[in-house]
Amino acid sequence: MTTDALHELAEALNDGALTTDDDRLRAATADRSGKVADGLPLAVVDAQSVADVQAVLRIAQAHSIPVVTRGAGTGLAGGAIAGGGEISLSVAAMRRILEVNADDQLAVVEPGIINADLNTALEEHGMWWAPDPASRAISSVGGNIATNAGGLLCAKYGVTREAVLGLDVVVPGGELLRLGRRTVKGVTGYDLTSLMIGSEGTLGVVVGATLKLRPLVPGTPWTIGAQFTDERTAAEACAAITAARIRPAIMELVGGVGLSVLAQYTGADLEGAFVLVQADDHDAEQTANAAAEMLRSFGGVVEQTDDLERAAHLAEIRRQMMPAMESVGTVLVEDVAVPRSRMADMFSICNEIGARHGVTIANVAHAGDGNLHPSFVFPEAEPTEAVWAAAEEVFAQCIALGGTLTGEHGVGVLKARWLRQELGDAQYALQQRIKSAFDPQGIMNPGKMFG
Amino acid sequence: MTTDALHELAEALNDGALTTDDDRLRAATADRSGKVADGLPLAVVDAQSVADVQAVLRIAQAHSIPVVTRGAGTGLAGGAIAGGGEISLSVAAMRRILEVNADDQLAVVEPGIINADLNTALEEHGMWWAPDPASRAISSVGGNIATNAGGLLCAKYGVTREAVLGLDVVVPGGELLRLGRRTVKGVTGYDLTSLMIGSEGTLGVVVGATLKLRPLVPGTPWTIGAQFTDERTAAEACAAITAARIRPAIMELVGGVGLSVLAQYTGADLEGAFVLVQADDHDAEQTANAAAEMLRSFGGVVEQTDDLERAAHLAEIRRQMMPAMESVGTVLVEDVAVPRSRMADMFSICNEIGARHGVTIANVAHAGDGNLHPSFVFPEAEPTEAVWAAAEEVFAQCIALGGTLTGEHGVGVLKARWLRQELGDAQYALQQRIKSAFDPQGIMNPGKMFG
Ligand SMILES: Cc1cc2nc3c(=O)[nH]c(=O)nc-3n(C[C@H](O)[C@H](O)[C@H](O)COP(=O)(O)OP(=O)(O)OC[C@H]3O[C@@H](n4cnc5c(N)ncnc54)[C@H](O)[C@@H]3O)c2cc1C
Ligand SMILES: Cc1cc2nc3c(=O)[nH]c(=O)nc-3n(C[C@H](O)[C@H](O)[C@H](O)COP(=O)(O)OP(=O)(O)OC[C@H]3O[C@@H](n4cnc5c(N)ncnc54)[C@H](O)[C@@H]3O)c2cc1C
Repeated sequence: MTTDALHELAEALNDGALTTDDDRLRAATADRSGKVADGLPLAVVDAQSVADVQAVLRIAQAHSIPVVTRGAGTGLAGGAIAGGGEISLSVAAMRRILEVNADDQLAVVEPGIINADLNTALEEHGMWWAPDPASRAISSVGGNIATNAGGLLCAKYGVTREAVLGLDVVVPGGELLRLGRRTVKGVTGYDLTSLMIGSEGTLGVVVGATLKLRPLVPGTPWTIGAQFTDERTAAEACAAITAARIRPAIMELVGGVGLSVLAQYTGADLEGAFVLVQADDHDAEQTANAAAEMLRSFGGVVEQTDDLERAAHLAEIRRQMMPAMESVGTVLVEDVAVPRSRMADMFSICNEIGARHGVTIANVAHAGDGNLHPSFVFPEAEPTEAVWAAAEEVFAQCIALGGTLTGEHGVGVLKARWLRQELGDAQYALQQRIKSAFDPQGIMNPGKMFG
Repeated sequence: MTTDALHELAEALNDGALTTDDDRLRAATADRSGKVADGLPLAVVDAQSVADVQAVLRIAQAHSIPVVTRGAGTGLAGGAIAGGGEISLSVAAMRRILEVNADDQLAVVEPGIINADLNTALEEHGMWWAPDPASRAISSVGGNIATNAGGLLCAKYGVTREAVLGLDVVVPGGELLRLGRRTVKGVTGYDLTSLMIGSEGTLGVVVGATLKLRPLVPGTPWTIGAQFTDERTAAEACAAITAARIRPAIMELVGGVGLSVLAQYTGADLEGAFVLVQADDHDAEQTANAAAEMLRSFGGVVEQTDDLERAAHLAEIRRQMMPAMESVGTVLVEDVAVPRSRMADMFSICNEIGARHGVTIANVAHAGDGNLHPSFVFPEAEPTEAVWAAAEEVFAQCIALGGTLTGEHGVGVLKARWLRQELGDAQYALQQRIKSAFDPQGIMNPGKMFG
């Protein structure tokens, strides 16, 4: 039966689109989460067109073969990993920009285009697409949509959901749906565009996207680096900036454990906590002044600059966190979100849990929106029991603070076992019924999200 | 069986919550759309609590009795009208503010609270909730959510969907679901909050909402009134303001037919087209200057003021459109949206269709977001064949321009027969399967949206 399906696929697709090369199959079992799927997928399909994707979902449905959609494979939740008996469907080669309309502030693109490549192309039109995951140089627009990616700028400019007007989606069986619209407003029927955003390949394949653009932000940004003696005060200073309605574009907070790992890596003299703030637009200087004053009033030692080189140096402290942690051990990057006012509590909770379990938990937060990345660093190749026990406590405490399991990385396989706990039984069952409305046979990314 | 159900309801609810008074039943058959349901509903329930709503949906499900949820009944699509064999479930009495948290910029409210009452209460916290339908003094927050209401400010401040973090929803059978979250970011599972927004009472009853607030906008607004000799040029001037990235808070355009109705009503000397612009925040004056300059460069005769009385006078021209039209005949307010760059075309199309069918079509547009309200004015009490024929052509042309059937008022009963045309057969069927995932027996607002 599987052989039949592969034959049908080979016939339906262009030459070279279907491959069973061992190294391609092996690559498809992993993403950037550290999770690796069991077994090797049946095949990798490099879709060149909407018709290719339709053929795969038609044939897969007919033979009940699971399909794992893959963008750039940079996901941190194991959402794109494909294993035994599955087809890995890559849309990375579908990367054209079909339209840029500066008057209507929209662009129509294929899903495989890399976020940074799109933004480079938009520049000459004086526009940009706001979602800016730290992975923007390596992740795809389709992947950003499928995970509702956030980033450093999203406290001010919104997450991916706020930046998409419509989606073309192929569903199991091969039907092409046009969801959403080209207009900024519209309420015709249920909002299936929003439902697709963040659905992690479990409902259908995004084969086209109508994106909401923004005009490029004018002026020179102002950047602030602020050093604090303890991270609780730093977190409170950040919350106070938001409460005072000061709106920087970026506000990142590196906690004490992270700084000591960084000090080890760079040799620099770092401890306590570090806050990075960037303000943009016409009122950049004014916003930076107000933020700097607030940081100082909480005891921060502040450097403020509009020199781009100096700014890059300050940003580097935040940016080097990942290589610094990786130099010490294996890193499990977690991703919880709490109401902004509980951010300081969440830092303390992570420290306490880390100390009690003897696990290094370095914390970096998107401080403007209460999204923390507790990063578990350990010498073993895989998370140990102690790491999972600590992580489980972090999740439980986060939910107790009114927070959520994942702010931007998604559920994938990593958090599937905690999903029911946050949603409750009734909503969990309803979400599964909604999946069945798209995918009655359950061929789209099984085992992801719902476990 | 129905009698059994009413007995069960009377027992489950507090005294006085269930009524079969003739005038209450009759009132429940209508909203502000002009549509009236056939027959009288079985009963009206004035829910006082979540438990009341749960009791209604439990008993209604057990007896397969349709339930029509009602907020303030100001809807323009006939979504809240209840007829023979149905229960009209009003949540208007559930109007408490449960929490205002200025630090986290959120509020938790019951659904029946009137939009303007909420905003009055938020003022002392220095906050506001952005959705501002022209009906904000008379419509409920739950109704705004169920219709994804827009308003004058939404080109700058977004529609209702952008202003809701989480929803408590009772589904058929009586289960209470907590959708969404209190955090600004979160990607745990499918976004059922967005799915509920705009679902027009067809999936479940919103019994609580966690709203995303904004800090009050500082400064004095600047207001512009601009007179044009023809509406095409006026529409182009508005599109040019958006294209030039000038961001007023309000930009409304009254077309030629509307102005002549208004001239008749007020005796003022008005013709051509009128544009109302309002700019707010610290840069109000600067934004108004830029907008005024653009309007002048398209030939507009511009008045610009920060005097509040004079501003109110200019705004009055827009505000009097509705009473002016109602003084001439019956008004069917339509609600289409097109990409901003096609707004001028849409004005011309409506004029041509109106002339050909001998129907008065007065047009007012939220010009910042391409949302037009072609208003059909006729002497008869109900729309004639000619009116419907003209409306049908307006919809078809709007879709041909890449637009949508309804920008903010919803589908209800008025547009149910055009829904499939915009969605396509496959998406239409999928939307019905999604409804079934919430409401397998189809008791929630049957006949609305899907017809
Ligand atoms: C160094 C680094 C930094 C990162 N920083 C951030 C950050 O700041 N913010 C953030 O949110 N994430 C971040 N991530 C995570 C990751 O980059 C994002 O989740 C990104 O959106 C994934 O895009 P991708 O193209 O790599 O998707 P993949 O990893 O290929 O897939 C991710 C999920 O989306 C599904 N999918 C992909 N394409 C489609 C499609 N066309 N149709 C349907 N489903 C599809 C897959 O099935 C899978 O479930 C980071 C990752 C790395 C390695
Ligand atoms: C003068 C005037 C001006 C208007 N201007 C605008 C405008 O600028 N923008 C705009 O968008 N609309 C406008 N409207 C239309 C209307 O006010 C909006 O649609 C409003 O959001 C409806 O709120 P409501 O409480 O009156 O809802 P209702 O009319 O009672 O109900 C509307 C729909 O929502 C459902 N519903 C209501 N409450 C709930 C709930 N708690 N749970 C589930 N479903 C529920 C109903 O079943 C129905 O389908 C205007 C109306 C008038 C009369």
